[in-house]
Amino acid sequence: MKEFMSEDFLLSTPTAKKLFDVVKDAPVLDYHCHISPKEIAEDKRFENITQVWLYGDHYKWRLMREAGIDEKYITGDASDHDKFMKWAEALETAFGNPLYHWSHLELKKYFGISKPLSSDTAEEIWNETCEKLKDPALSVRGIVKMSNVKLICTTDDPVDSLEYHKQIAEDESFDVQVVPAWRPDKALNIEKPDFTTYINKLAEVSGVTIDSFSALKEALSKRMDFFSSMGCHVSDHALQYVMYAPADELTINKVFTDKLAGKEPSNEEMRIYKTAFMSFVAAEYKKRDWVMQLHIGAKRDNNTNMYKKLGPDTGYDSIYNYLPADQLCDFLDSLEVNGNLGKTVLYSLNPADNAMLATVLGCFSDSYAAGKVIQGIAWWFNDNLKGMREQISTLASIGNISVFLGMLTDSRSFLSYTRHDYFRRLFCDMLGSAVENGEFPDNERVLTKLVKNISYNNAVKYFNFNLDTI
Amino acid sequence: MKEFMSEDFLLSTPTAKKLFDVVKDAPVLDYHCHISPKEIAEDKRFENITQVWLYGDHYKWRLMREAGIDEKYITGDASDHDKFMKWAEALETAFGNPLYHWSHLELKKYFGISKPLSSDTAEEIWNETCEKLKDPALSVRGIVKMSNVKLICTTDDPVDSLEYHKQIAEDESFDVQVVPAWRPDKALNIEKPDFTTYINKLAEVSGVTIDSFSALKEALSKRMDFFSSMGCHVSDHALQYVMYAPADELTINKVFTDKLAGKEPSNEEMRIYKTAFMSFVAAEYKKRDWVMQLHIGAKRDNNTNMYKKLGPDTGYDSIYNYLPADQLCDFLDSLEVNGNLGKTVLYSLNPADNAMLATVLGCFSDSYAAGKVIQGIAWWFNDNLKGMREQISTLASIGNISVFLGMLTDSRSFLSYTRHDYFRRLFCDMLGSAVENGEFPDNERVLTKLVKNISYNNAVKYFNFNLDTI
Amino acid sequence: MKEFMSEDFLLSTPTAKKLFDVVKDAPVLDYHCHISPKEIAEDKRFENITQVWLYGDHYKWRLMREAGIDEKYITGDASDHDKFMKWAEALETAFGNPLYHWSHLELKKYFGISKPLSSDTAEEIWNETCEKLKDPALSVRGIVKMSNVKLICTTDDPVDSLEYHKQIAEDESFDVQVVPAWRPDKALNIEKPDFTTYINKLAEVSGVTIDSFSALKEALSKRMDFFSSMGCHVSDHALQYVMYAPADELTINKVFTDKLAGKEPSNEEMRIYKTAFMSFVAAEYKKRDWVMQLHIGAKRDNNTNMYKKLGPDTGYDSIYNYLPADQLCDFLDSLEVNGNLGKTVLYSLNPADNAMLATVLGCFSDSYAAGKVIQGIAWWFNDNLKGMREQISTLASIGNISVFLGMLTDSRSFLSYTRHDYFRRLFCDMLGSAVENGEFPDNERVLTKLVKNISYNNAVKYFNFNLDTI
Repeated sequence: MKEFMSEDFLLSTPTAKKLFDVVKDAPVLDYHCHISPKEIAEDKRFENITQVWLYGDHYKWRLMREAGIDEKYITGDASDHDKFMKWAEALETAFGNPLYHWSHLELKKYFGISKPLSSDTAEEIWNETCEKLKDPALSVRGIVKMSNVKLICTTDDPVDSLEYHKQIAEDESFDVQVVPAWRPDKALNIEKPDFTTYINKLAEVSGVTIDSFSALKEALSKRMDFFSSMGCHVSDHALQYVMYAPADELTINKVFTDKLAGKEPSNEEMRIYKTAFMSFVAAEYKKRDWVMQLHIGAKRDNNTNMYKKLGPDTGYDSIYNYLPADQLCDFLDSLEVNGNLGKTVLYSLNPADNAMLATVLGCFSDSYAAGKVIQGIAWWFNDNLKGMREQISTLASIGNISVFLGMLTDSRSFLSYTRHDYFRRLFCDMLGSAVENGEFPDNERVLTKLVKNISYNNAVKYFNFNLDTI
Repeated sequence: MKEFMSEDFLLSTPTAKKLFDVVKDAPVLDYHCHISPKEIAEDKRFENITQVWLYGDHYKWRLMREAGIDEKYITGDASDHDKFMKWAEALETAFGNPLYHWSHLELKKYFGISKPLSSDTAEEIWNETCEKLKDPALSVRGIVKMSNVKLICTTDDPVDSLEYHKQIAEDESFDVQVVPAWRPDKALNIEKPDFTTYINKLAEVSGVTIDSFSALKEALSKRMDFFSSMGCHVSDHALQYVMYAPADELTINKVFTDKLAGKEPSNEEMRIYKTAFMSFVAAEYKKRDWVMQLHIGAKRDNNTNMYKKLGPDTGYDSIYNYLPADQLCDFLDSLEVNGNLGKTVLYSLNPADNAMLATVLGCFSDSYAAGKVIQGIAWWFNDNLKGMREQISTLASIGNISVFLGMLTDSRSFLSYTRHDYFRRLFCDMLGSAVENGEFPDNERVLTKLVKNISYNNAVKYFNFNLDTI
Repeated sequence: MKEFMSEDFLLSTPTAKKLFDVVKDAPVLDYHCHISPKEIAEDKRFENITQVWLYGDHYKWRLMREAGIDEKYITGDASDHDKFMKWAEALETAFGNPLYHWSHLELKKYFGISKPLSSDTAEEIWNETCEKLKDPALSVRGIVKMSNVKLICTTDDPVDSLEYHKQIAEDESFDVQVVPAWRPDKALNIEKPDFTTYINKLAEVSGVTIDSFSALKEALSKRMDFFSSMGCHVSDHALQYVMYAPADELTINKVFTDKLAGKEPSNEEMRIYKTAFMSFVAAEYKKRDWVMQLHIGAKRDNNTNMYKKLGPDTGYDSIYNYLPADQLCDFLDSLEVNGNLGKTVLYSLNPADNAMLATVLGCFSDSYAAGKVIQGIAWWFNDNLKGMREQISTLASIGNISVFLGMLTDSRSFLSYTRHDYFRRLFCDMLGSAVENGEFPDNERVLTKLVKNISYNNAVKYFNFNLDTI
C-alpha cells in the first residue's frame, strides 16, 4: 500500500517519477483565475483556515450542502471554528472529490501538515493552521512566492480602473507579474436587467456617448487599449453556448438601441446581438494579439431562493448540455473568413462534448500559432482526476497534445497553486505509463520537452508574455 | 490468473477484500424493483431454471435476439429445456455483458453451481437446477430470506388494491417488509390511447368523480393516503425527459377536460399537463415525506411489429438522448420556490448526461436531508460494471458520494439480489484501490462507515423506513 | 519497462498473448475503405515515404497544422523530403494520437524499421524507406498480399463504370477480391449545388430519363443491379444525422422535380426527400441481401477558406453532435414495419451517442441475421485506443459483442492494414484481462471462437462473401 499522498502521489511508475522530477519545481503561469488584485496589492493576511478555505469557495459549500449540513455552518453566522469542524466532517468521507486532494495538497505545501483531515484531527489542524497563519510567509504575497508563480492573469471588467494592478506593478518589492484579463460579460449579456446601467457606466469610464452599436464598439476599443497598456494579453467570455446568428448592421444596431430604450430583446434578437458582439471583439483581439478564451456551457443561478439570499457564484450553477457544433463551427469560420480568427481557447463544461470540441480545433489550425484554436484543461466541475484524464486523453487521441496549454487554477483562493502540482503529477503519470507499457518511446529529449512545454513553456509562448521558457 | 468468479471476484486489492468483508453479509433494502407481490404472497415455486430466468427477463431476450436466435426459443413455443439450451449458447460468448456475471452469481448463490455455463455444461446445469428447485428453500420467500432482504418496495399503480401487500403484512410467518411504491404513469401520460379509460378506473377506485384537474388531484391524493396507510414511502415516475411548461390553472384544466372529451392534446398541451401533474404530485410527496424517484430518458416500444405481438416491456426500448438541463433545473427550482421540493432521486438512462446531472444535484441540496436531490445508481442499460463505475466516479468527482443510496435491483426476478453483492464488490474495489494507491487514507473508521452507509444505511435513513442501521 | 512497440505491444497478460497468437496471422477482410481501385489495377509504385504517407492523408495534415506547421510543408510546394522532416517533427511529441502507433506499425511491418521516428532519426528513415520502396514487393499489390488481405470493398459512386474492378477481377495474377461498395451520397444530397448535374449524369449512365422520383428509383435500381453483377454486397451512406420525415409520394416527387427545375428545397423538404430516398434504397438493399452501412454524424468542410483552396476531405471536418434517437428509431421501425429492414451497420462519429446506439440495436434484432442491426467499430476521430475501448466496452456492456464485425481500415492508404493488427491486439488484451481477473472463464474453445469470429469470421458471414472462415 502506498502512503497517503506521499512524494509519489499519483506517480505509479519509475518513468512517471523521473518526469515529475523535471517539472515539480517548474514555475507557474496562472493564466486564468479569479483572485483579487486588491488582496495582492494589500498583501492580505488570514487569521484562520476558515477564512482561507471557506469564506468564498463555492466548491466546498456544495460539498457541505450535499452532506445535509445546515447553511449556518456554510455561509451563515456560525463561528469560523465551528464552520471548520463541519467542513472536516463533510470532507472525511468525500471519496473521489478533488476537494479531498486539493485540501491535503494545500495543508502539506503551505502548512507542512501531512495527516489526513477528519473529525478526529480537525481540532488539532485548526490549531496548527491558526498558529502557522501568524507567519508573514503565509500572507497573500508570501503564498504566491512560495508557489513559484511568475505571472497571474486576474479576471477584470472593462470598466475596472485596474488601480491595484498598477499599484502592484509599481511595487518593486514584489516581482510577480499581475496582469488583467478582459472579461466583458456585462456588455455582452443584453438580456440581463442590469445591462443598461452597465452600458451607462461603460460610457462614463470610456468617455464615449454610447447611443449606437458603433459607439459601443468604440467604447470597448478604448478600454481594450487601456487594458493593453496595463499588460493585458488575454480576454475571457462566459457563454451558455456559442451561437451564430449573423445580421446586418442596421438590425444589430436596432436590437441594441431598442434595449437602451427599454425594449427587451427576443431570444433571436439576443442571439443577433451576441453574435455581433463576439464577432467584433474577436477581431479586436486578433489585432492586439490577445488570446480569446471562451468558457462555454454553464447554466447559472439555478436556485432562485438561494440566489436571492446569496447572489451569484455561490454554488448554484450546473452544466448546460446544449452546444450545437454547427453554430460553434460557423462562428469560428465566419471569423476565419474575415481574417479575424486569432488564438482561441475553448473550455467546455459538458464533458460529453470533449470529443466534438477536439475535432473542431483541427478545422481551424494553421501556422498562425501552434494550437491556434485549442481546448483548455477540464473546467470547473471537470477539474478533477477523472475529468482531466478524460479531457487530456480525448484531446491526445484526436488532436495534438503537444501544444496543450496545461494548467490554470481558475480559483478564488491563493492556496490553489497546488493544482498545478496535481496536474503535473497526473500528466507525468499518463505519459510515464505509456512509456512503461511500450506505447511511447523512452526518449529523454522528447519526454523532457513534452513535460516542460505542457507544464509551462507552451503557455509562455502562446500568451506571448515576457517570461523565459525553461 | 484469478479463478473465475471466486470469493475475491472484482476485489483486486487487500483493502478491497477487507472492506467487502464488512458488508458482504449486510442486509438488503431493495427500494426499487418490479417483482410481483402476488408471487410473494403465494410463495411461488419454479419447476425449472427457464421459468426463473427466461419467462420475463427482456435483458436476456435481447441478448438472444442479437445473437440471431429464433424468437421461438425466446418468447415462443419451444420447450423450457430447449430455450435454456439456446440461452446457454447465447451466453457463452457474451463477453462484457452483465448477464454473464449475474447468471453466474445466481447459479452460485442459489444453486451452489460454480462451473461456467456454456453449451458444454448446459445440460448438466439444467438437470442440477431442476433438482435444486424441488427444494422449498428455493420458493420465492425462500430466495428472499436467503438473500437477507429486509424490505422490498414493489412498483404499483394508484388504482391497485394492494391486497397482496396486505396479505403479506398480515402473514406472521414472513417477516420481510413488502411495501408498495406509487407509480402513477398512466395518470400522467395524457397522450396515450388508454388515458381516459384509466382516469375512469381511478375515479371508480377513489370514489371521486373526475371531471376536472382539481378532481383528479383529489382522487390522486386519496389514493396516496391509502398507499401511505399501506407503508408506502416512495413514488416513482418514468419520464422521457423532465419538462417544464408552466401554465395557469384554467389552461391546465382545459387540456385535461378536452382530453376527457376526446380531443387529443398538442405536444405543447401535453407538456403543460405533465408539468402541472408533476408539480402537484411532487408537493404531495413532500407533505408525506415520500421520496420522489424520476426515471428519465427511456424511449419505449420502438419496434411496432413486436409491440403488437408481445406488448410493452419485452426488450424493445432504448435510450432517449434529449434531456434539456434548463427544463430539468427550472422544474426543480419551481418546486423549491414553492417549498415543495423534497427528497428526489434522479436516474438517467443516458450516461452522456451523468456529469450534467451530478452538477444539478448540488444546486438543490440543503439540510432538509443529506442528498436531498441525488442521483440514483446507473440504471437499466447502464447497470453493468462500466456503467456503474462511470456513474459512481462521476458523482464522486463532482458531488458527494458519501450520501449515495447504493444499489437496488430494478428487477422482475427474485434471483437478482446478487446484484447488491455485485455492486458492493465493485464499490469496495474502487475505494480499496484509492486507498492502496495513496489517494484516500487508510482510516478504518471512515472506510467502514462509508461502505456500510452506501451498502445499506443511507437508504434506510433517506427512505425513512422502520429498519435498524448496521 | 516494456520495449517500445515490441511483439507484445498492447498485450498486457499471458492470456492476451495467447489469444493474439490465434489471430495474428488471420486473413483480413477490409469491408470499408477509400483506396483507389485504379491504383490496384495499375499496381502503383511509390518513390518515397511522403508519397505513401502524406500525399492524401488528412489525419496527418491535421496533426501538422495543429503543431503550427506551415501549409507549404503539408499540401504545399515543399519537397517530399522536407515534408517528411516536418512530419517527423510533428509526430515525435504526438503522445496519445493513433498516428504515432499507426506510423510505427507501418514502418515495422512494411519497412522492417523498429526505431522510433523523430527529428533525430527522420533523415535515416527517409533514406531507408526510399531504398526499400524500390523493391517491387512494396507495390500496391505487394503491400496488399503482404497484409494477407482476402477481400477489399472500395467505395464507389453509382455512376462509376467499375472498369478497374473488372480489370482486377480478370487479372489472374492477383487473387485478392476487390469489389465495389455502393455509395450514393451525391444522389441523396439534394441540397448540394451539384445535385442536378449529378442526376443528369446518373440518367446518362443508367439510360433512364430521370424526370420524376419514380424514374430516379428506376435508375438507381438499374445501377444496383450492375453493382451486384460486379460483386457488390455492401452499400454505404454518409448522413449528418438519421432523419425521419415521411411524406406521400406526390409530395416527395414535387420536392424532387422542383429541385430539378431549379427550386431549392427548404430544410423540411430536404428531410422529406432524404427520408424517401433512404427508405427506397434500404428496401432495395434488403432485396439484394446487401448490407446497409450508415456513417452518421460528420459535419464537413467547416473551414470555408481552406475548402476553396483544397476541396473536400482535406482535414476540415468535425463531429456533429445532433443525432435524435427518436428519428433514428422511427426510421428503422418504418423499414421493419414494411419488411424492408435488412442487415444494417451504424457508425456514429459522436462517441457520446455510443450507449444510445448500443440500445437501439437490440430493438431491431431478430433471427434474420446475427447482429441484424449492429454498431460498427469506432469511426474516424474515434479510431484510436481510447475510442475503440470505449466503443467495444459499451457495446459489450449493453449488447452482444460476440456478433461484432471487427475492424476495417476506412483508409485511403495501402499501408493501413496494420490497423487490423492494432485492433486485434486491443481486443485480445481486453478479453485477456477479463480472463486473468476472473471475470470471464478460461475456456479455450470459447475464447478461440470469440477472437476468430471478431477478427474475421463474423464479417465473412455477415457480408456473405465467398470466403472460407478460419
